[in-house]
Amino acid sequence: MKKIVKNGRIFTEAEDYQADILIEEEKIVYIGKDLPDGDAEVIDAAGCYVLPGAVDVHTHMDLDVGISRAVDDFYDGTVAAACGGTTSIVDHMAFGPAGIPLHYQFDVYRKLAEGKAVIDYGFHGTAQHVDGEILSELETMAKDGIPSVKAYLTYGFKLNDADVLQILQKMKEINGITAFHCENHDVVEYLKQKHKSEGKTTPIWHAKSRPNLAEAEAVERVLKLARMADDAPVYIVHLSCRESLEAVREARRQGQKNIFVETCPQYLLLTEECYTREDGLKYIMSPPLRTQEDCDALWEGLADGSIQVVATDHCPFNYGKEKQMGKDDFTACPNGAPGVEERLMLLYSEGVAKGRITMHRLVETLCTKPCRIYGLYPEKGAIQPGADADLVILDPETSSVLTHSRMHGAVDYTSYEGMEIQGEIRLVMQRGNVLVKENQFIGEKGAGRFIRRKPCAEIAD
Amino acid sequence: MKKIVKNGRIFTEAEDYQADILIEEEKIVYIGKDLPDGDAEVIDAAGCYVLPGAVDVHTHMDLDVGISRAVDDFYDGTVAAACGGTTSIVDHMAFGPAGIPLHYQFDVYRKLAEGKAVIDYGFHGTAQHVDGEILSELETMAKDGIPSVKAYLTYGFKLNDADVLQILQKMKEINGITAFHCENHDVVEYLKQKHKSEGKTTPIWHAKSRPNLAEAEAVERVLKLARMADDAPVYIVHLSCRESLEAVREARRQGQKNIFVETCPQYLLLTEECYTREDGLKYIMSPPLRTQEDCDALWEGLADGSIQVVATDHCPFNYGKEKQMGKDDFTACPNGAPGVEERLMLLYSEGVAKGRITMHRLVETLCTKPCRIYGLYPEKGAIQPGADADLVILDPETSSVLTHSRMHGAVDYTSYEGMEIQGEIRLVMQRGNVLVKENQFIGEKGAGRFIRRKPCAEIAD
Amino acid sequence: MKKIVKNGRIFTEAEDYQADILIEEEKIVYIGKDLPDGDAEVIDAAGCYVLPGAVDVHTHMDLDVGISRAVDDFYDGTVAAACGGTTSIVDHMAFGPAGIPLHYQFDVYRKLAEGKAVIDYGFHGTAQHVDGEILSELETMAKDGIPSVKAYLTYGFKLNDADVLQILQKMKEINGITAFHCENHDVVEYLKQKHKSEGKTTPIWHAKSRPNLAEAEAVERVLKLARMADDAPVYIVHLSCRESLEAVREARRQGQKNIFVETCPQYLLLTEECYTREDGLKYIMSPPLRTQEDCDALWEGLADGSIQVVATDHCPFNYGKEKQMGKDDFTACPNGAPGVEERLMLLYSEGVAKGRITMHRLVETLCTKPCRIYGLYPEKGAIQPGADADLVILDPETSSVLTHSRMHGAVDYTSYEGMEIQGEIRLVMQRGNVLVKENQFIGEKGAGRFIRRKPCAEIAD
Amino acid sequence: MKKIVKNGRIFTEAEDYQADILIEEEKIVYIGKDLPDGDAEVIDAAGCYVLPGAVDVHTHMDLDVGISRAVDDFYDGTVAAACGGTTSIVDHMAFGPAGIPLHYQFDVYRKLAEGKAVIDYGFHGTAQHVDGEILSELETMAKDGIPSVKAYLTYGFKLNDADVLQILQKMKEINGITAFHCENHDVVEYLKQKHKSEGKTTPIWHAKSRPNLAEAEAVERVLKLARMADDAPVYIVHLSCRESLEAVREARRQGQKNIFVETCPQYLLLTEECYTREDGLKYIMSPPLRTQEDCDALWEGLADGSIQVVATDHCPFNYGKEKQMGKDDFTACPNGAPGVEERLMLLYSEGVAKGRITMHRLVETLCTKPCRIYGLYPEKGAIQPGADADLVILDPETSSVLTHSRMHGAVDYTSYEGMEIQGEIRLVMQRGNVLVKENQFIGEKGAGRFIRRKPCAEIAD
Repeated sequence: MKKIVKNGRIFTEAEDYQADILIEEEKIVYIGKDLPDGDAEVIDAAGCYVLPGAVDVHTHMDLDVGISRAVDDFYDGTVAAACGGTTSIVDHMAFGPAGIPLHYQFDVYRKLAEGKAVIDYGFHGTAQHVDGEILSELETMAKDGIPSVKAYLTYGFKLNDADVLQILQKMKEINGITAFHCENHDVVEYLKQKHKSEGKTTPIWHAKSRPNLAEAEAVERVLKLARMADDAPVYIVHLSCRESLEAVREARRQGQKNIFVETCPQYLLLTEECYTREDGLKYIMSPPLRTQEDCDALWEGLADGSIQVVATDHCPFNYGKEKQMGKDDFTACPNGAPGVEERLMLLYSEGVAKGRITMHRLVETLCTKPCRIYGLYPEKGAIQPGADADLVILDPETSSVLTHSRMHGAVDYTSYEGMEIQGEIRLVMQRGNVLVKENQFIGEKGAGRFIRRKPCAEIAD
Repeated sequence: MKKIVKNGRIFTEAEDYQADILIEEEKIVYIGKDLPDGDAEVIDAAGCYVLPGAVDVHTHMDLDVGISRAVDDFYDGTVAAACGGTTSIVDHMAFGPAGIPLHYQFDVYRKLAEGKAVIDYGFHGTAQHVDGEILSELETMAKDGIPSVKAYLTYGFKLNDADVLQILQKMKEINGITAFHCENHDVVEYLKQKHKSEGKTTPIWHAKSRPNLAEAEAVERVLKLARMADDAPVYIVHLSCRESLEAVREARRQGQKNIFVETCPQYLLLTEECYTREDGLKYIMSPPLRTQEDCDALWEGLADGSIQVVATDHCPFNYGKEKQMGKDDFTACPNGAPGVEERLMLLYSEGVAKGRITMHRLVETLCTKPCRIYGLYPEKGAIQPGADADLVILDPETSSVLTHSRMHGAVDYTSYEGMEIQGEIRLVMQRGNVLVKENQFIGEKGAGRFIRRKPCAEIAD
Repeated sequence: MKKIVKNGRIFTEAEDYQADILIEEEKIVYIGKDLPDGDAEVIDAAGCYVLPGAVDVHTHMDLDVGISRAVDDFYDGTVAAACGGTTSIVDHMAFGPAGIPLHYQFDVYRKLAEGKAVIDYGFHGTAQHVDGEILSELETMAKDGIPSVKAYLTYGFKLNDADVLQILQKMKEINGITAFHCENHDVVEYLKQKHKSEGKTTPIWHAKSRPNLAEAEAVERVLKLARMADDAPVYIVHLSCRESLEAVREARRQGQKNIFVETCPQYLLLTEECYTREDGLKYIMSPPLRTQEDCDALWEGLADGSIQVVATDHCPFNYGKEKQMGKDDFTACPNGAPGVEERLMLLYSEGVAKGRITMHRLVETLCTKPCRIYGLYPEKGAIQPGADADLVILDPETSSVLTHSRMHGAVDYTSYEGMEIQGEIRLVMQRGNVLVKENQFIGEKGAGRFIRRKPCAEIAD
Repeated sequence: MKKIVKNGRIFTEAEDYQADILIEEEKIVYIGKDLPDGDAEVIDAAGCYVLPGAVDVHTHMDLDVGISRAVDDFYDGTVAAACGGTTSIVDHMAFGPAGIPLHYQFDVYRKLAEGKAVIDYGFHGTAQHVDGEILSELETMAKDGIPSVKAYLTYGFKLNDADVLQILQKMKEINGITAFHCENHDVVEYLKQKHKSEGKTTPIWHAKSRPNLAEAEAVERVLKLARMADDAPVYIVHLSCRESLEAVREARRQGQKNIFVETCPQYLLLTEECYTREDGLKYIMSPPLRTQEDCDALWEGLADGSIQVVATDHCPFNYGKEKQMGKDDFTACPNGAPGVEERLMLLYSEGVAKGRITMHRLVETLCTKPCRIYGLYPEKGAIQPGADADLVILDPETSSVLTHSRMHGAVDYTSYEGMEIQGEIRLVMQRGNVLVKENQFIGEKGAGRFIRRKPCAEIAD
């Protein structure tokens, strides 16, 4: 059945125009002035913005972190995502048991997602060790629709620098991209143990154990290793501080190409003062929240194009339960926080409505650029004939208060409780199907499909 | 009558997709997959690229330079432009008599263009002096569709720094933009006289009289004055050298906003070695041609976004006649060279086909960005429903040799004689009318219209 | 007669050691541990620092500014200098009548100084116009002991950029150096007239008429002109703001050599808030006082070596008389302020004692470096065998309050009234003669001699 | 007995003057013009330069590297040093057995040096592991005259980043300094094994296994760790490439203090082309020789002050014997090369005589600055009353050819065989005793003394 979105103001990363969109068989087929309705179902977007469905390339649904499991499975989590205007995710799979090949977790995750996810989804795995088998698997994974891989420089299965170098070389060879969690493991572990041994176990010591410079050092290191691998593509996840951003800028100034940077709303909007609140455990995540100066630097980096993606690192644990494991010791608290639903409204309200970024930058960083980088474009992230009909209709004028009771995930809090929000999502559509209308999820469990992603389209030679 | 452009690969500054374009009453109305032809005339673009008509925001048609007059009037010049894929120009009007108000030349130029121009055209004037009247005229000119003005830092009616400051403040106030010809007048005049007095009168001394640093100094000065005027928008015309580009980058690094930079094909592709040829007089223009190192820097600046526009500074004089005035003394030679027709093919062939820039950057710098800056967007510079149906169909595969006999302007040479060209323009359309087909102009004299431009859409607060 | 300075702690730009100094026939002859007194007069410096006599390369004694005359003649002014630990000056001669050759003022000034100056003195003149005669005079002036010249970019006899270029080329050729007063004339004049026409005539409008960027622009311009002259030596007088310092750093980063920078105590220690005081006229000088942010930047530049010299621009007018010419109109107030006596104590107290700079940097910027730059070294500015016995004995422990009644010049105020001062000058000696002892001048009128300076010793090829 | 050095031209880091030096009881006592000879032995330095004895803060005498032992013991090595104008060394002690405290090697080395060394010597040890004991030993070592320690980021006992952080914090606390060998261990080991496994075992593969970026990465990391430790002093040994220097400059630009950089003559003068020679094994050292571009960058860094020290990393193995262990496999070759004797003449001839650096920079980087950094100043590194009478008399005019037969160490080659040398050392004196005269060693075995060093005098707060 056909649908037609009428009278909306279409925003893409570059364009801003009034037109109607005709949808047929899951795809956008025509875009035009005063398109005839014909037999199409009409969706009126008058007074609203129409944008590509947002894409979240950093989620952790149903994540097993050993001491507990993220409370959103692929159903709850993708319902929350959809209600927040996100129509596709690239989920970061857990490490899994020691020594496994990359496909092991791929099998596990397909089962976790199938029949549950309500929006389209891709995955990528984590290289938890490196050997010839893993390196050749990177190639088969890419052929299976996963042209990206993640590497951690901290946590249990962190890679050493030679591992990283080899991964980068291989991914460069296959036009894939490597995502990095950058923190200096030795420094963080030392500080955690030091603080703990001195009885400093409240949440603020989580932040003190993971200083800005421990992140910036790891960013610099990854960039140098990528430089050694002939400017292999690097994607830095959840960059959180000014010093890291400076490291990125300096590398680019020296001519290094293929550096991609992601930040998350929490690093733009929350500060380490949260850790001194009574409910400080809610904000235990890595990297930790930083200072207002860092937030300002990140907004500036977002505005000037230094940061290309805003994702969420969605990884929720209940404050009333799992998070309480850390109440006497921050090191025992599972790391992570919810955010998959709040992203678009936060970026519109705090970014666009407050004049920090343009609407074009919002579309670019939430919708289009992540798709270009991770090989989902142009099926996802674009409003053009032939693209998937994944659309968000946003009313820029309405305002409301962000509160947990309006949220749709399984977790028991939102980090932004009580924040005034400008703008409201009226409708979310995936492949022509309306998933959300006026904050009600009306989609279908399991309707989401696995996305076979292509190689990175943004890589410069 | 309707037209439909079928089967083409559409390129915009951001997008690249296969679709058909339906045109009705001068406008793009639908863009879609397999649009039904209905009663529309079909133009087949299979195997070709479809881009927005190129816009040249720096031409000098019928320019009176005192000692002579540019040989392309608005008919010859715009025919040449059209044949090169350019469907709109913003012509830079001559100074005119001393002491005149801005509207004086506006009247002169409307008469020069009306009934002659075959493509759409805007103008902007030159502030040749500054007083209260001129400042208030900037506002009325903007209301009359000319929200920009030009200032020269050299030549007869150059402005002093206080004049420049006042212009900048006023233009900032009205969301207009000021275009600057940046060269240090005193230095250039001193060197010209010095060289002349030493008998150094061959064309190479033209270049030696206008060193890179004389341009870079003026660029720095204009940027500082704009900074004093609260980051008033500055548009630097024909930036030609590495040092000037560094000055721009440094200003941006210090946080200055609203800096726009134009270069021209001659600065990307020709070097001062041309002046040592027998026909060196052909290349007498200001700023002069530079070195290969400068060309390389400009290509890099184009690729990385430091330079936003490529225009032409088209200002042709016959080598066989006017240019010969300089045969015994470079200072007597009229400054300027043709280029309005060659631009798009040069940028495609030397830029895109040689991998220096992407097709998106070509569209951005030749079509879209100049329209955004000068208030022609989105009627011009865009392929979207509602935009003027100004289109170029480019065949990327064909190659040919650039030679004067294939050119359409009145001048007796091309600066690029004999250059191998990859790509060929198959068709050029303005407002739905086909102007050029297979290098034949088939448009109508006088069909071009004056464009009432809007304020600059790109200005950051 | 011999003298021996015993038991002092000798500080040079690089060294810090305990030793005795034997002086004979105006010169330092031996430096050693426990030198035998022999028949020498002993001066005990136990507990004190011994440094080279300070050198002030920017004074305006007896300056005729047209509307009035600086109130310190060469006697009063040099007595004040001596009491402040300064044993040599390079005085900046007034413009003089229009069209005069450089030697004209030289003759005038020798007469002004001879028989009056109590310390040694050099001069340099101002190029108030440029022609072949002036350019060749630069060479004869250098041979006469004046290997430097000054150029103004503002005020009545300002030079244009071509003049500046020619001066720079000539001075480079003769290993001389050009000192520049950098402010954008057109901008300053425009703002002065604008403010005046709007009735804004109080002292703060003096500052508003000469914005930071008007200085920074002129600095950039001079640096670019020097770059055109193959890195001709440039000496920027009284650099006063952050933006100018950034311009200098950027030029150096680009590889430009031979850039020398001077600031003055007033720009380090006073801010534009002074203009809002009742006695704001006292601080009318050009460039004007800036903000605390600028002061901080200058201290940092002093500490890191970006700024090489601290001089005074001493040019006093009585607050009770000449300065009152500006009471209804800041533009009618003679520009300038006293400072020749306060410099060393301010730099010691606010700089060294407060930990902003080391004692070595104090000696370098007040004593040694200006001598190296201006060709007084090593007779002046050094403690080494063969150097002139120009010494200051400074007691680092004593503190006092700076107040006008303790000052020795002719002017009726000090800009630093009431400031707490750490450190006290115990004794000042020139060529072995004690000029000052415990704040009493005991030297001889007219004992100062003209210094035939050598070419700049610091110029890099 | 007294000595007097007459008629020399004395050079210090800052000064350049003609004077005589009187020496008594090992110390300089007087410096003066025409000092009376009295009963002193006269050493005539007419026509020559007199400088402080050079100090080499990076030697490895008698070093046990497991697979072999450096061939210069403390006698041969210090005789060679003395003949090259070096009058003090700070020797870097070998790791020693696993798990030992720092004092263990100190005891070993005192025995190695006592009765053998002919010049004065200090040591510092290597932290091969970090625990509470080692950290507290850093303090006792400092009290015993060793206020510095070395850390390796590669080789067997490399430290991890948390170890480094703790060392830096402790050394900062005690005003000591930490010297770092910076190379990324994982990357180097990976490349070595990779090349070896591919049969790439010739000397050039040594260089390919240790790329510039592997060094630069480690430099950046150490700098970031020092930044975390509140700008703890960092001394980077043998910095060898452009990228590392850029990392240092960027850190300083960001405001980081207390960064000290050493390079060695081999990195200034030799390139990796040496590895392709038949005798390539001679040049196997770590970091390896780089390219001419790197040499140029290092000379520039030396000239502009970015690099503060030139030492040697003297660690000789016979080409005819130990080096041959690597003839089939570069990884089996002991790392290191001779150089303690050649340094001063190379720096004078290639640096000063060729105009790359001034004589002041030579004295600063070879004599004075290393003493300031490592706590030997002002006894060593200075020509001033009270300093040790360690002097070199250099004839700037004579030239010769550098050849092994004129060398004095035990090793069987020099890396600079056949190089034309401008300048010749006429005499070397330590504490008033003449050690070398016209290239003949005439000193006494065992006359060298252990230097109890003081805390670093150069540390900025």
